[in-house]
Amino acid sequence: MSTVTSIRTVDIRFPTSIFLDGSDAMNPDPDYSAAYLVVETDSDDGLAGAGFVFTIGRGNDIQSNAIDVLAQRFIGRDVEELLGNMGATWKEMLHDSQLRWLGPEKGVIHMAIGAVINAFWDLRAKRAGLPLWQHLATLSPEEIVDLIDLRYLSDALTREEALEILRAGKVGAEERIAELLERGYPAYTTGPGWLGYSDEKLERLAREAVADGFTQIKLKVGADIDDDKRRLAIARAAVGPDFRIAVDANQRWDVDEAVEWMSQLAEFDLAWIEEPTSPDDVLGHAEIARRLAPMPVATGEHVQNRIIFKQMLQAGSLEVLQMDACRVGGINENISILLLAAKFGIPVIPHAGGVGLCETVQHLSMFDFVAVSSTMDGRMIEFADHLHEHFVTPASIVGGRYQTPTAPGSGAEVLPASIDEWIFPHGSGWIEIEASGGTR
Amino acid sequence: MSTVTSIRTVDIRFPTSIFLDGSDAMNPDPDYSAAYLVVETDSDDGLAGAGFVFTIGRGNDIQSNAIDVLAQRFIGRDVEELLGNMGATWKEMLHDSQLRWLGPEKGVIHMAIGAVINAFWDLRAKRAGLPLWQHLATLSPEEIVDLIDLRYLSDALTREEALEILRAGKVGAEERIAELLERGYPAYTTGPGWLGYSDEKLERLAREAVADGFTQIKLKVGADIDDDKRRLAIARAAVGPDFRIAVDANQRWDVDEAVEWMSQLAEFDLAWIEEPTSPDDVLGHAEIARRLAPMPVATGEHVQNRIIFKQMLQAGSLEVLQMDACRVGGINENISILLLAAKFGIPVIPHAGGVGLCETVQHLSMFDFVAVSSTMDGRMIEFADHLHEHFVTPASIVGGRYQTPTAPGSGAEVLPASIDEWIFPHGSGWIEIEASGGTR
Repeated sequence: MSTVTSIRTVDIRFPTSIFLDGSDAMNPDPDYSAAYLVVETDSDDGLAGAGFVFTIGRGNDIQSNAIDVLAQRFIGRDVEELLGNMGATWKEMLHDSQLRWLGPEKGVIHMAIGAVINAFWDLRAKRAGLPLWQHLATLSPEEIVDLIDLRYLSDALTREEALEILRAGKVGAEERIAELLERGYPAYTTGPGWLGYSDEKLERLAREAVADGFTQIKLKVGADIDDDKRRLAIARAAVGPDFRIAVDANQRWDVDEAVEWMSQLAEFDLAWIEEPTSPDDVLGHAEIARRLAPMPVATGEHVQNRIIFKQMLQAGSLEVLQMDACRVGGINENISILLLAAKFGIPVIPHAGGVGLCETVQHLSMFDFVAVSSTMDGRMIEFADHLHEHFVTPASIVGGRYQTPTAPGSGAEVLPASIDEWIFPHGSGWIEIEASGGTR
Repeated sequence: MSTVTSIRTVDIRFPTSIFLDGSDAMNPDPDYSAAYLVVETDSDDGLAGAGFVFTIGRGNDIQSNAIDVLAQRFIGRDVEELLGNMGATWKEMLHDSQLRWLGPEKGVIHMAIGAVINAFWDLRAKRAGLPLWQHLATLSPEEIVDLIDLRYLSDALTREEALEILRAGKVGAEERIAELLERGYPAYTTGPGWLGYSDEKLERLAREAVADGFTQIKLKVGADIDDDKRRLAIARAAVGPDFRIAVDANQRWDVDEAVEWMSQLAEFDLAWIEEPTSPDDVLGHAEIARRLAPMPVATGEHVQNRIIFKQMLQAGSLEVLQMDACRVGGINENISILLLAAKFGIPVIPHAGGVGLCETVQHLSMFDFVAVSSTMDGRMIEFADHLHEHFVTPASIVGGRYQTPTAPGSGAEVLPASIDEWIFPHGSGWIEIEASGGTR
């Protein structure tokens, strides 16, 4: 038996706004950040669990504080009991009768719950000696369904339907694991498309994406229609007619505006329009999807929980579901979203534009391939090529495909030296930026 | 000219769980709490602005921290400029390009924005020497529309439509102000119906509600169908056949379960079923409303923002809109919700079961009567009779009607002695409870 001895929360911020990595129509100057926690125990194994919420700068302190306050309840608790019943551990936070008032199941408190349970998942997978995707795939259908919360979902997905999907997923799972380990999982890249990049940089990066073996790139749109047309023409010329180009408006428009704007870009033969309007607007997305058909609508990185995803699937709001590793209430809720998507036959292509998202979402997509949808058809994982060097087990892309992780854990662990450098506001990197008169 | 000199945030909690005030099917043991802030300036007038987020206990520290971090940006700023352009002051927080990642526009960060702008509204109304409802009614239609954010609403409400509603509201406004000051505004009471109360207490309080001049009571339901039937029979016998009884499930059910449960209670001739399912479930509410018709569905106390309300109005999810003073992004967003409700012809009957909610929502309903819907038909304000003694200008009920407040401000200001007693965890009241072996 071992007990939780410490849960340390750290506000880590990277100065990405200086280089305009990650800039889009709604997020002009992000400092990619992680409200990060580490769970330590008194076990002889020396293993710790890492989890985080991705944010884009200001407010990372608010998110870190929420994680810190929430997590303290686990200090001194029995680790085997917590890890042995991850459904109960999660629901203890999710259903706390007083805390739920802060959501319920949305925003800062919900993301904090996700970070804490994900840290326990990281620890559990490390103890099992498996990468998280593979560890999850060892669970029985019943064990998996016991992890999730079907409340508010039963009009779209019952427990029995979830079990059927997971039982079907057991057939051929070993072959799919072998395929994953051999071939990896397809990726697309957002690298060329950030709004703050020059035309030259866009063109160069688009050509590189093709050369690197990606089969899709994504461009940010929505700030200026003429810029969008010019940049899409450059990108289309660079990648050729048969290469997929998606675009992302990052919630920029109202319904009519989205339809009008995107109608002007249809000539570029786009793979999807992402986040055309508010992530809360199920009916708005559905109307945009109807009016822009056959252009697919994609959304999800800001969708707060399984209940909004359920409705988007019911209403036909999306044709590509882009869940995020940190937005909802952790691995447990992500599994319920994978099951919903499988029920509706919609591909999940996770959001990964941020710090640590590539490292973590790959486990979700790979678990989906092995145990839920059982297919890679129409599936990819987003890849944004920055900040990987700060992780103990960085995501790795070869020939446009994620290399399947084999190291134990969830991929969330940040290098100690990176924490020392970028802990905010007193890390050595921030002190240096301040000394040199940097923008922060 | 004056500047903001301090913004102080206080974690205030009242030990209501000891007496089961406020208990319902999802919130069995609330400690009614306020994440409270006070904005002070260096003006000679000595006025301060108060605002708060209502929570039910644990997590009030998380909410207080969020307010504190958010509000610091206003220290040293020009008060007249901040108060003179309340739309810009609000949008500076709402549209912060980094902070919005924590929502967007939902949960802890959004409620924090609401508390901060509401504190500025309190200060502004005090400076104007008017109660907030009346101060808002002095604004022109254009000034009011400039306060709100129409983004994501234009498929349901355009700027021009909002202006038309407000221009129509100017007609007869003076007469309605006079009527309000003379007669007050109708209330209903949730006092008898908390789930933790005994049958005897329920019956006694139901009789008292009739005697006190209320025309509606509300009972919590959803924990046990037999209990619900017994309690409704007791209540119906106590109040007689012509008195309105509403019920409130506090998000207890899935869609089918809501329909089945409520079909069994239809014989009690209910005024509405409130929060039958998740506040995020626009489509679920709509289906419940269709299948339970003509029994009205009410919801809103947990609806996160104007975008969900818009969809609920579009989809027919509710027949009574129960917005809250603290859930959304403050007075500014509440005004946009009043306008949406007026556009769709749906009555707003605000949620007020909590601490300080009666004191603050009355201003919203009274402003609605004077300037937006221009009617009290089918309108009421919830009244829950506890904790009013902690406020400088407590809500007052006479003959089942809210007495129209005439004191300057928003009603949010808490007495200094109450703060000293119930600041958590070191207020004198909490120290006493701990010393006596209380439940906290």
